[in-house]
Formats: sequence, C-alpha cells, structure tokens
Amino acid sequence: MSAEPIPFPSADRTPAPVDGARHVVIVGAGFGGLACARRLAKSDRRVTVIDRRNYHLFQPLLYQVATAALSPADIAIPVRRILWRARNVDLVMASVQGVDLARRRVALAEGGYVPFDVLVLATGARYNYFGHPEWARHALSLKGIGDARRIRTKLLAAFEEAEICPDPARREALLTTVIVGGGPTGVEMAGSVAELARYTLPREFRRIDPARARIVLVEAGPRLLAAFPERLSAYARTELERLGVEVRLDTKVEAVEAGRVRAGGQEMGAGAIVWAAGVEGADGPGWLGAATGRHGRLKVDVDLSVPGHDGIYALGDVAVGDDNLPALAQVAQQQGAYLGRWLARADRPGVPFRFRDRGDTAIVGRNAAVYAWGRWTMKGRLAWIFWALVHIVLLIDFEKRTLVSVQWLWRYLTYSRGVRLID
Amino acid sequence: MSAEPIPFPSADRTPAPVDGARHVVIVGAGFGGLACARRLAKSDRRVTVIDRRNYHLFQPLLYQVATAALSPADIAIPVRRILWRARNVDLVMASVQGVDLARRRVALAEGGYVPFDVLVLATGARYNYFGHPEWARHALSLKGIGDARRIRTKLLAAFEEAEICPDPARREALLTTVIVGGGPTGVEMAGSVAELARYTLPREFRRIDPARARIVLVEAGPRLLAAFPERLSAYARTELERLGVEVRLDTKVEAVEAGRVRAGGQEMGAGAIVWAAGVEGADGPGWLGAATGRHGRLKVDVDLSVPGHDGIYALGDVAVGDDNLPALAQVAQQQGAYLGRWLARADRPGVPFRFRDRGDTAIVGRNAAVYAWGRWTMKGRLAWIFWALVHIVLLIDFEKRTLVSVQWLWRYLTYSRGVRLID
Repeated sequence: MSAEPIPFPSADRTPAPVDGARHVVIVGAGFGGLACARRLAKSDRRVTVIDRRNYHLFQPLLYQVATAALSPADIAIPVRRILWRARNVDLVMASVQGVDLARRRVALAEGGYVPFDVLVLATGARYNYFGHPEWARHALSLKGIGDARRIRTKLLAAFEEAEICPDPARREALLTTVIVGGGPTGVEMAGSVAELARYTLPREFRRIDPARARIVLVEAGPRLLAAFPERLSAYARTELERLGVEVRLDTKVEAVEAGRVRAGGQEMGAGAIVWAAGVEGADGPGWLGAATGRHGRLKVDVDLSVPGHDGIYALGDVAVGDDNLPALAQVAQQQGAYLGRWLARADRPGVPFRFRDRGDTAIVGRNAAVYAWGRWTMKGRLAWIFWALVHIVLLIDFEKRTLVSVQWLWRYLTYSRGVRLID
Repeated sequence: MSAEPIPFPSADRTPAPVDGARHVVIVGAGFGGLACARRLAKSDRRVTVIDRRNYHLFQPLLYQVATAALSPADIAIPVRRILWRARNVDLVMASVQGVDLARRRVALAEGGYVPFDVLVLATGARYNYFGHPEWARHALSLKGIGDARRIRTKLLAAFEEAEICPDPARREALLTTVIVGGGPTGVEMAGSVAELARYTLPREFRRIDPARARIVLVEAGPRLLAAFPERLSAYARTELERLGVEVRLDTKVEAVEAGRVRAGGQEMGAGAIVWAAGVEGADGPGWLGAATGRHGRLKVDVDLSVPGHDGIYALGDVAVGDDNLPALAQVAQQQGAYLGRWLARADRPGVPFRFRDRGDTAIVGRNAAVYAWGRWTMKGRLAWIFWALVHIVLLIDFEKRTLVSVQWLWRYLTYSRGVRLID
C-alpha cells in the first residue's frame, strides 16, 4: 500500500448496499474472523472483512518459519482465495484506525471509512513486554511473517558471524540463543532451534561446532506448558533437556539489551533473543473504550457481544468472557463459526456460546509432542504423528498441504532445513 | 549480520594455512563461483568462497518469485549445504569492500581481510539505469530475492489498492504494469504478470476486473529477445499480444517517476514499474582498477585472467573476453568449471576457455516458450515442456526439485499462484 493518502471523491470504501441488507463488518482475517465470514457466506447479509494483510496466517506453524523449516507462503493463504466464492463477502486490505461509534463506521488509516450495522472485532493478540516496550527491539517476538523472517535471519546470521569471529567470548555469545517464555511457542521454538543446531548445521561449518550452541529457555513460572497437565510439563522439560536445551524455571527476566539478557540475576550474551511471553489483546479495546479483562482483552458477554455497545461483538484472542477461555485457534474458530451462524439469520445470537474442547497440543521435537484432552493425555512419537496429521489437515489449502507434507517428510528423512535464507 | 563492526584480535578471517597450500579465494557464489569451487573441492588447494548472502540463487526462476508463483526458498539453496562435503572449502559470509593488490588480500566491509594466492572474481552483474540512478527508486529491477519480494508486493498491492479506490483515473493507473526491457527477463515478467492478472486474480475481486489490467512491455530496439533468431522474436511478440500485453518496440524510456513512466513521448500512470533493461558488471572492476569492456565488464584474457594482474581471474557476468559471450548462467558455469579444473592442479589454465553452446531458452507463458541452439529452433508447447524439464533438472537440490515440480503442476492444473503475500 502506498504511504500517501489516496484521494477519495467518495469516502465510503464499500459498494452500494444491496436493498437494505444488513452490513456485517469483520475486522481481522485470523481464525476467528475467517470462520465468521465463512458462515456468513451466501447469507443475505452484506459482509466486509478488513485486514491489513492480504493473507490468512496459519499461526500455529509460524515457529517453523522462524526456524527455517517452512516458507512463509506455506502457511499464508490469500484471504481472497479463501473467500472468492462468497459473492456477498467483500475484502478490504487496509489498517483500521478507529471506530466512530456515533456514526457506526470504521475509520481506515488509508483514509475513508466503512459503515457497519454489525461490527465483529477479531483483531487477535500481540506480545507485551511487561511494561518494557524498549525490550522489543532486542527480543524478537513471533506474531507475523515479518517477525518470523527476522528471527530466522537473526538465528542463522549468528552462526555465520560466529564462524568468522576470532574473539572466543563474542563467539560464545553468538552461539547462545535465549528464549523467554515456557508456553507452547517458547517450547516449540527451543526444540526447533536445538534441532537446527544439533542436526542440521554441524556438518556445514568448519570452525565452529553448531552442535555445541547453547539454547536457554527462561520461564518465570514453576513449570513449562502451564496449560497442560503436570505430567506433560515434566515430559516436555525432559525432552528439551535431552536436546541440550537449558531449561530455567522460576526465573524472571530482569533486563534485555542488544545481545544481552539478565535473568534470575545472571547475565547472558546472546546471538538471538526470542520473546514468547506475555500476550495482550490487540488494537480493538482502544477503539471502543470498553472494559477490558485479563491481559487487556475486551470483556464480552456470553453471546460475545461487547456490553454497552449494541451490535458490536468481539471474539478470539482479543476477547475474554467470564469463562476465561485460553487464547487458542480452536476457541477463536468456534466463536467465529457460532457468531457467523447466528448473524446470518438474526441480529444477535439466541443462545450463549459454548466451547467444545478439542484438546490441546504442543510439539517439543522430532518424535516428541504432547496432547491433552481434559484428563486424557498422550505424549511421544504417537502424539507427534497425531500433531503432524492434525496440522496438515487444518491447513486450509490443498496445495499448502502437499507442500508442507513434502517438506516435513524430507526433513524427517534428512534432518535438513530448506529455508535457510538470511534476508 | 549485525551492523556494528566486530572487534577482531586477529584480522585474518581464514583458518591457518595447511602446509603452505595455495589459497584460492572466490568472490561470489553464483553459477560461476560455485562451479569453480566445486571443481576445486577435494583438491589440495585451500579454497575460500566469499559471498554477502548465505545462499546460491537460481536466478533464471527469479521472475516466478516476483510474480507469486514460487517462494524465495524454492530457488535459493544455502551455499554451505552445497559445499559441506568439500572439507578444503571455507565459506565466509561477508561483503567485500576492496582488493588490496599490494598485499594480496581481500578487505571485508565487516572488518578484517582474507589473504589470497589466487583470486577469482565472480561477482555477477547489476542493473544500470542508463545514467538515471534516481529511476531505481520507482522502477524496480530483479536481481536478488529482496527485489523479487518488492516487485511481488508492488504488483499485488496495486490490485488491492485499486479495489478500494473510488477515483477511476487513479484506479486505471494502479491497474497498469509497465515493464522496461524486451530481453528474456522482460518477456518472462510480462507473460507472467499477464497470466496472473488474466487467470489467477479475476474471480477474487468484486469491484475491479483484474483481467482488464494493462501490461505494457517497452523495448528500445526493433524486436523482443534480440539474442534469439527473428522468427522466435516474432513468436514471442504474438504470444504476448495474445495474452493482452501491449508490446511497444523502438520505444525509449524518457522519464520515470513515482507511479509514472514516459516512453516514446507518451505518459503512462502505473501501479508497478519493472526494470529489466541495461545490465552492467557488478563491483569487481572497481576493486582492481582494471580495464573494462562492454557494459562495464572486466576485460579478461582467453584463460579468464585479468591482464596485468597476476593470479587474478574473472568470470561470468562480471567478465568479458574478446569473444563477447552473453551474460548467461551456462557461460558462467562453464567458465567456473574450466577455471576450477585447472586451478586444482596448476597455477594457471594451460588452454584457452572454449564455450560450448547448450542453446538458449525463454518462456513467454503457459505452453509457450522459445528455444534456440544455433540455427536450430523450437517454440510453443514442446519448447515449454522442455524448458520446464531443463529447469527442474538444473535446480541443484532434490528437495527444491520436488517442491518446484509440485507447485508447477498445481499451477498448471488450477491457474492458481500460491505465494501471493504482500509484505
């Protein structure tokens, strides 16, 4: 998108309303927004999806882009391609600047606005740095494709720099990766970085031994994967340690600078610092000035409506109800589908939203994953195969499924990583 | 690579010499440099390859990255992976700043240097803008992966912007792509952009008709593909016109501004401008202060040595001999192999380099390619299948071959393009 504002003879960015059809505007084409739009397809509503990106991102596999296993395009599908059959659904690629509540319209940063009858906020979450926004420059978080590419470049460039660095202390720092946060993203990153260093890179360097790279996973709480049963937390820790990851529990990060982390009173030099802790609701709450709950997420009612704002709904990571559901793709997806189904025929849902737990999974490494469904748990190779199958099936696009499958199979057989580009 | 200079206790970036082995330093891991390094593998020379990127780029398919058909990683292979078995070959990822001829060492921008006994410059070519460097900001050229991503973003964002643009004149400009240069890259770009607009995008937009996008190919000379027989030039033109490309021959570009091109006295607004004309030798010549020939390429002798510089060679796009060989991958590759073979056992080649023409090919569109081998020519679907097979085989990496094949087959069957990311 060009930076200068586009001149608009008419400021309304949507086509003329069709015979007074109600206009549902969805902000965000993540799991929640997309599920909502798909249920509204072919209804007699007019629907506009607004997203600042032109693609839907399959975020659960983003860590594989950050660790050179998959290409960005393998997990990013153009929203237009997904919705092309839905002739009543319009897509506007633009950044939302705010919501004009009085005139019921969404203002776009590019100029112009989109009027709505019903507004669905599905803007997701972003990382926060516990009140230290200045850490963001040095500790890279993993939300979008740009982030993943930056982490990939940082990780790989550190090995390259170490290879030609004659200063042993600096070399040691370059060969250290610090990952902050022991949730699924942190665990997956730690495992994947460890495998990259241990299995993929060693043969190729002449002066450094990537297999001796240090990977430190720092978690403030008493165990990894706090959302999973303790048995699986312990398993994840053991598996990571088997891969040579130093797991530091009950350890708080105290300072982050360029190439340095202080955690639990200890200083560490680092070639790459990855931030996988502390998520908060994205822009939505600010636009409404509405009440927020845990982690700055918009408070919503049992039908996902935002109290005090008639015809405005929020779902997914940006929203939180009294049930305090976790920030998971399946929650967003079910909420989107629920809301879309109702809005297709009524002005508001007739029954409360009910979450159906599909179980939760995280991957530690090759042949090592965990899966928990209530009290039922699974771990190891079986869980890993299950994880891979589920993720292949969930990929929305047939071509992507094939490409991801081929790459996983190839990597499984050879330990290679095909996407080792330093940008 | 971090921006700040790295402190070096010792400035020499290469490991200690092995028993006085001659040290061959190759700058550039393109087709030429890599072929040279591979022939030197397992010889008793010490070899160092210096490249500012960590990957070898399969440049002939770069236009497919720029038009959303392939991912960058599909055509970029880590140099370390290619050379990992060659234990006498070292890789330094760094930018060369100059050559210290007196002390026979290459100076790196990152600090430090690499001493050499024999130096091989294989730095390739870059676009020039006929004395108008300021055009580079608005007319994107296609040399590296960053360029391809920028063009892809520019192309796709223009359609997105047009979709929400209420000003008809501006919309028309956004839906115009101007490509400058009627050589293989220009022809391939024009064909590929036309197919993207005609076949892939139309179903997905609601308010614009991408199929009516205007694609203009501007060539200063009297025909397209000047290096091919006239019959094939005429064929390429007919095929492009069948795809709706406006081909303007004998037309000189007079001015380029943001979103505007003046060519042959006519002004055109444009959503994207691609520069595929005017190539010159890259940095090498400046480092030596040696004589340059056509297009600023380093003049070389029949054995690829740079006259007046003992033990310094140049090959590929940065070099030119009296035989005036074209800037083609196969020339660079054969020169690299020739030089590597000789340098593995002697201090300089014993016989002159002789180019073996493998024929030259360019693709216009689906089922439409041209191939010329001396007076023997081929065009249409057969040439297209031949082109695809040759390029699949030439891709150096098995995984890439599979991935590219899958994507091509998928695209052939569905007209879809899988890599439509706006960065």
